[in-house]
Amino acid sequence: MSANEKSKSVLYMSMSLDGFIAGPDDDADHGLGVDGECLHDWLGPWTGKSAGFDPPGASAKVFEESMATGAVVVGRRTFDLAGRWGGDHHGVPIFIPTTGTPPPPESDWVNYVTDGVESAMRQAKDAAGESNVMVHGASLAQSLLRAGVLDELEIHLVPVLLGEGRRLFEHLGADHTDLELTRVLEAPGVVHLHYRVTS
Amino acid sequence: MSANEKSKSVLYMSMSLDGFIAGPDDDADHGLGVDGECLHDWLGPWTGKSAGFDPPGASAKVFEESMATGAVVVGRRTFDLAGRWGGDHHGVPIFIPTTGTPPPPESDWVNYVTDGVESAMRQAKDAAGESNVMVHGASLAQSLLRAGVLDELEIHLVPVLLGEGRRLFEHLGADHTDLELTRVLEAPGVVHLHYRVTS
Repeated sequence: MSANEKSKSVLYMSMSLDGFIAGPDDDADHGLGVDGECLHDWLGPWTGKSAGFDPPGASAKVFEESMATGAVVVGRRTFDLAGRWGGDHHGVPIFIPTTGTPPPPESDWVNYVTDGVESAMRQAKDAAGESNVMVHGASLAQSLLRAGVLDELEIHLVPVLLGEGRRLFEHLGADHTDLELTRVLEAPGVVHLHYRVTS
Repeated sequence: MSANEKSKSVLYMSMSLDGFIAGPDDDADHGLGVDGECLHDWLGPWTGKSAGFDPPGASAKVFEESMATGAVVVGRRTFDLAGRWGGDHHGVPIFIPTTGTPPPPESDWVNYVTDGVESAMRQAKDAAGESNVMVHGASLAQSLLRAGVLDELEIHLVPVLLGEGRRLFEHLGADHTDLELTRVLEAPGVVHLHYRVTS
């Protein structure tokens, strides 16, 4: 394996208390689904500056940590829904596990990986060096958990019940995953829960 | 309605990070389902004393609050799975919304309510006086939310992904429920999140 041990893979996801990361019918025009935009309210308004957001209180620290990651692994569906970020997510390499023939990369940052999520994570950690790897996407997170290559979770738990939509944890199967809660940060409209995967 | 305004209805539930309040195949012998017992680890061992548990750290405060409620409203299925608590839950009146002909009450504390969840909650608040009402049961909680008669939620969020089982929030439909996070208490093996329902 020779994985980079200094780099941790961290899932960053906003989730409603009832477990949804998007409302119903999420698509390219509505990445957070119908009425799902409230999941990102804690970020504050789009600033137009380099990092894009300037969230209040303790959310600033969490957001800065996510922007300090040295690589991104993102699910193909999430990547496509997000317009492939125009080929750039905070100026670091992006790895997209992909089945079938990948499209042409949008930029030099973009790396489609066709030999599985473990390979994608290994490549991302090598690229990140001593920084962590940002994980994005619900389906990908589940694949990484099943493969045992997700190290940590930063859940931005939003005080709303969406009722319907896309769940973060849906198809994990009956095997428990034990976690350790390592940090709790309260901020306006959110509580940030940081977990380490321990099994 | 003439509801008792001094009493608040509070859902007390242990939930895994992936939203389950029991593992699969919960029944009378396994109220927490297959491998779901970890959801109650934060309570510590059964003491055999009056309150039953003596949980560590901040969990003690949360547990004492739950035991200070002046009435219980519980879903029929949960009540039956729990052996109807032998007719007694911390010495307060118990109200069980029921369809069809109710069985004979197990004790003077037990009140089967056949005219709906709003009526059950109204009766429970009247019985509780200035104390709060404990709500127990996932299906009941959803019914109370839909009826607009659940005031607060105390979620004991347990650091585990169960993967399968019974969800706390499953059939709420597309209407959002806005919440306000009013308290966060960390304790061994759990973080207690207290929410007020605001819509």
